[in-house]
Amino acid sequence: MAQLVNPDLVRERSRASFDAEKLTAVLYGGPDEVTRKRRIEALALKDPDYTHEDLSYLCREDQYVAMLKKSLMAARKVRELGLSERDRDSYMDFLLDWRAGAVNLHRTMFTITLQQQGNQEQRAKWLKLAEDFSILGSYLQTEMGHGTFLRGLETTATYDPSTQEFVLHSPTLTATKWWPGGLGLTVTHGVVMAQLYTQGRCMGPHMFILQLRSLDNHKPLPGITVGDIGPKYGCNDGDNGFLRFHQVRIPRDNMLMRFAQVAEDGTYSMVLDPRLIYGTMVSMRVRLTEQSNFALARAVTIAVRYSCVRHQSELTPGEPEPQILEYQTQQFKLFPHLAAAYAFWFTVQTLQTHYEQVNSRLQEGDTSGLQEVHALSAGLKAFTSLAAHRGIDECRLACGGHGYSHASGLIYLLTSQAVIVTGEGEATVMLLQLARYLVKCYAKSQAGAKLPSTVSYLQTVQSAAVSGVAARDLNNFDVLTEAYQHRAARLVKVAAEGVRFKVVSEGQSESDAWNNCLVSLVKCAEAHSQFFVVKTFVEALRRVDVDDSARATLTSLCQLYALHGICEQAGDFLQHGFLTGPDLPLARSQMCSLLSKVRSDAVPLVDAFDFHDQTLQSVLGRYDGRVYEHLYQWAKKSPLNKDQVHESYYRYLQPFLQQNRAKL
Amino acid sequence: MAQLVNPDLVRERSRASFDAEKLTAVLYGGPDEVTRKRRIEALALKDPDYTHEDLSYLCREDQYVAMLKKSLMAARKVRELGLSERDRDSYMDFLLDWRAGAVNLHRTMFTITLQQQGNQEQRAKWLKLAEDFSILGSYLQTEMGHGTFLRGLETTATYDPSTQEFVLHSPTLTATKWWPGGLGLTVTHGVVMAQLYTQGRCMGPHMFILQLRSLDNHKPLPGITVGDIGPKYGCNDGDNGFLRFHQVRIPRDNMLMRFAQVAEDGTYSMVLDPRLIYGTMVSMRVRLTEQSNFALARAVTIAVRYSCVRHQSELTPGEPEPQILEYQTQQFKLFPHLAAAYAFWFTVQTLQTHYEQVNSRLQEGDTSGLQEVHALSAGLKAFTSLAAHRGIDECRLACGGHGYSHASGLIYLLTSQAVIVTGEGEATVMLLQLARYLVKCYAKSQAGAKLPSTVSYLQTVQSAAVSGVAARDLNNFDVLTEAYQHRAARLVKVAAEGVRFKVVSEGQSESDAWNNCLVSLVKCAEAHSQFFVVKTFVEALRRVDVDDSARATLTSLCQLYALHGICEQAGDFLQHGFLTGPDLPLARSQMCSLLSKVRSDAVPLVDAFDFHDQTLQSVLGRYDGRVYEHLYQWAKKSPLNKDQVHESYYRYLQPFLQQNRAKL
Repeated sequence: MAQLVNPDLVRERSRASFDAEKLTAVLYGGPDEVTRKRRIEALALKDPDYTHEDLSYLCREDQYVAMLKKSLMAARKVRELGLSERDRDSYMDFLLDWRAGAVNLHRTMFTITLQQQGNQEQRAKWLKLAEDFSILGSYLQTEMGHGTFLRGLETTATYDPSTQEFVLHSPTLTATKWWPGGLGLTVTHGVVMAQLYTQGRCMGPHMFILQLRSLDNHKPLPGITVGDIGPKYGCNDGDNGFLRFHQVRIPRDNMLMRFAQVAEDGTYSMVLDPRLIYGTMVSMRVRLTEQSNFALARAVTIAVRYSCVRHQSELTPGEPEPQILEYQTQQFKLFPHLAAAYAFWFTVQTLQTHYEQVNSRLQEGDTSGLQEVHALSAGLKAFTSLAAHRGIDECRLACGGHGYSHASGLIYLLTSQAVIVTGEGEATVMLLQLARYLVKCYAKSQAGAKLPSTVSYLQTVQSAAVSGVAARDLNNFDVLTEAYQHRAARLVKVAAEGVRFKVVSEGQSESDAWNNCLVSLVKCAEAHSQFFVVKTFVEALRRVDVDDSARATLTSLCQLYALHGICEQAGDFLQHGFLTGPDLPLARSQMCSLLSKVRSDAVPLVDAFDFHDQTLQSVLGRYDGRVYEHLYQWAKKSPLNKDQVHESYYRYLQPFLQQNRAKL
Repeated sequence: MAQLVNPDLVRERSRASFDAEKLTAVLYGGPDEVTRKRRIEALALKDPDYTHEDLSYLCREDQYVAMLKKSLMAARKVRELGLSERDRDSYMDFLLDWRAGAVNLHRTMFTITLQQQGNQEQRAKWLKLAEDFSILGSYLQTEMGHGTFLRGLETTATYDPSTQEFVLHSPTLTATKWWPGGLGLTVTHGVVMAQLYTQGRCMGPHMFILQLRSLDNHKPLPGITVGDIGPKYGCNDGDNGFLRFHQVRIPRDNMLMRFAQVAEDGTYSMVLDPRLIYGTMVSMRVRLTEQSNFALARAVTIAVRYSCVRHQSELTPGEPEPQILEYQTQQFKLFPHLAAAYAFWFTVQTLQTHYEQVNSRLQEGDTSGLQEVHALSAGLKAFTSLAAHRGIDECRLACGGHGYSHASGLIYLLTSQAVIVTGEGEATVMLLQLARYLVKCYAKSQAGAKLPSTVSYLQTVQSAAVSGVAARDLNNFDVLTEAYQHRAARLVKVAAEGVRFKVVSEGQSESDAWNNCLVSLVKCAEAHSQFFVVKTFVEALRRVDVDDSARATLTSLCQLYALHGICEQAGDFLQHGFLTGPDLPLARSQMCSLLSKVRSDAVPLVDAFDFHDQTLQSVLGRYDGRVYEHLYQWAKKSPLNKDQVHESYYRYLQPFLQQNRAKL
């Protein structure tokens, strides 16, 4: 009902230069896909059996219980509804978001690990139990003292041929498993990563499945100490847990044996090329890149809509307070992130396609392209998650005081996004994985080898023009792409030659030289990732089927993304002379012109992301813009308001004040 | 007991090149000041009457009650102890930190406003009540729809000469007072900012004192609707509140009348120069700059110590896992913030001295220097609070997974610091206040006027050398200071001339031209603030009395602060040719050398800040480095661990699992 929408937003939408609905279709892959998405979304969000309570009002324990209840109902419904596998995943995503609910980890990590790491018999035995939710599982890898570096894990699984069992043990305090979702209170089973010892030798980390709690009364089984790890920055509806093993015995066939096995007598053998499991890691990184993108797009949606509803201060003396989106500084805070959200959206699509091609070859045992997509996805996971994390926080700050309230919906986005930066491969470690690949490729190309497509530009680094050409057309896509390519190529060269120089000329060991160049290695990996994003955005715009007005807006957005990056990292672009000093004020002034171009379409651009209000969970970012009345309603529900006078008054405040008055 | 300290930290301390205790004395203003600080700290933190519970374990309601209890006890103790005013403030700071507890706002805002805005009779009547805590007050300014821009406030105070009363009213929903600390449940009184109407004219925002709740039963007085505004990003131990007035009548002499008054017949008159109250705003900004500095220094203390205790991954194949502080990337993440914490420490001292000089002149009615320190403190409040906020989050990320736990102590620091960026003058608005002053000064200097000391460099902007001098000594303090001065001067010139150009050549109105240059205006204000920080750090090092080894380390730190800033904002330094392309790799490589110089003294450098473990409230940052055993103890206390099987199992999980198994 249009008359119920805040007039500020009605005006914004009425003057849109393009049809947001058509852009939504472009983003989701066509009108049919939009229909499918909305059908599943409605199934999940409009089902009256769910109570979508605002968890930020509950204490942590109640948050856990509310999410448990919802997760279990979702698991039940998803079977009753008879959805396809793809629709089922969408349904769960809409309902549970990235909430740490036990069922989410069960399906995204536990079940998938059984599928991928179990041999045929193991899959037959366990997978049905897991898929029917007869057991609930977690994935136990990280330890109190060990994270990303798998070889450092301390938990041991020692094979005892006399009983044909593995003995799981936590030899030190730092070996305590720490962080696994659902572990604290919920799961019955777990897949555990432990150092395999057999015939007196350590064979490195391997995976084992075991039961953790009794199926009769949920008590931890003998030898297992388990519990919740306490409050966190976010994800407090989840029971991330700790676990210690004291000589816990499990049968030999609880080792997941698809890639390696231990025979009855303890003989260890490899079965398949272990690189085949890299595909799983890549798929997880693609998923996290997508999540980062969604999170940033949501934050931008909230902040842009609120900035059109909020009026503050004065632009022209005597005039009414303007919408805060009229301020150039507000546009400068928000629009580069809006542009990044579009850039990442297309990046995710391209990365997904790339991964699917490699993966279908992998299924036939062909590992070609695996290294490339592994490195690329590591870099993009880090680059986009960091950018989204920073972007969400800037959106929060741009919402002023109300951005600090849980009513903004931005606190949830920010604290959830923080997990993605660190979890499943810490950002710096990921960037260094990409850097190692880039340096290797650079060396190969110096030796004359041909490089895979995403890094083939490294072959050109020697021949690229170095002297600056002033007054280029900085809105030209070819110039912009070339600028990023040139920067990435130069920074890879600097890093690679830096390492080499320290070895050859300074006599440092390979590892010392590498460590002494880490800062420039991270830098080159970031530059490569950003070049990929810019190039992908430009290519997507050349490909997508939109009308002229939408194309004009998307073009401004793409130019803004690229020019903003150039201004932010201007040193990199000036250093090697691809841009010159006089280009920079030009770039800055063109960037500011793009801000005002994007301004008039800002609301339809975020509308096109098509996030449901229930997904945004934001009073500030409501589609109808009726922010203030709902903020007041929201606040009144605070449990601290349940009595007119809080009970603590009688116990503490009244005696204190009375005593002080008596002394007067 | 030395044997209880983690050996990693023992080793770090034993190889320190200087005596941390002596540096502590430098930071706090001499050994006597350190003694005083520690005496008060011990009074506050070692008193067995306080239970310093970890609030992150409690639900919001219990957090409020715990903080209320502690605050009231502190208020009682502070009188019993008979401390001097200065010691009393330190005592309260140690105990209550920046917690939003009602008593904190009562003393920092309510009481101070009465002192500064009340006339003699009003001070006589109210101040004693407030100082004796017979009443508790809040400061009611921000409204749901209005923040930093005071003239936009909607609450009205209309004078009725027939009864000699003011009528307080909230004419709209957006006029609802929103955010005041202690308002939700606690305070009995408030100072409220409202638009004064008398004799049919609006005289702008003025302050009024009034009672909000009954002193008998704490119920809101007639016409007052008041409550808690709900959960926030941080500060959840505080009852930030909302308040609506419905035609609430208060006596005429409840208007705070030191600067302006309304006579019985409604005649309005100014009494004193209203610029005199700028002093209060400056003092608040100095205090927030100091808080930002402390917060950053604490975060760095935590992250540096933890990075010496944490071992991860490998530098050299086959070697044990190194301390993570050995990685160049970790040093690059932390040391620039360590350097910033030292830089800001000296900046706060200089700013304080500057403010005190201006303030003592103000007391005699002399407003000279007020504008300068007002602008400077606005810029530094914004610049340091943003830098600290970003720095704390980077420290958190640098602690990996455990940085995400409340056990890190970093979540509290981060979410509290976020308030300082937005509260009491939003960062962008503050930077624009400074920018307006800088542009004005630039115009004056163009007209030949002499400028105050902190901006006198703007006079040199025309004559400064523009062409680059390659291969300068980038470790030389004069070169570094000049680089920042040159950058600031150029960016002020660009912004000022940008505004002028739009007016003169493009025919824009003054206000449009200003808005179309906001991005470059913010930039010049940041550049000016950072120049002040660099210059102050350099000057402090020339002044302080330390031995050679400590001086060498502080010198590296100061060079690191300046060089890191140059690398981060390289475009600014290259754009105008003060540095050239070839200078930049040199700057980057010198910065990396400084990282390894700082490495060996990192722990004594953070030890010198002298933060008590109870102040840090961090398992990761403990002085003794015994991180893992305390992390385990901390987690076991989670309320979710109180039963071996959580009660939700019986209600939700058991029936779910049993049903699914039955279907098999």
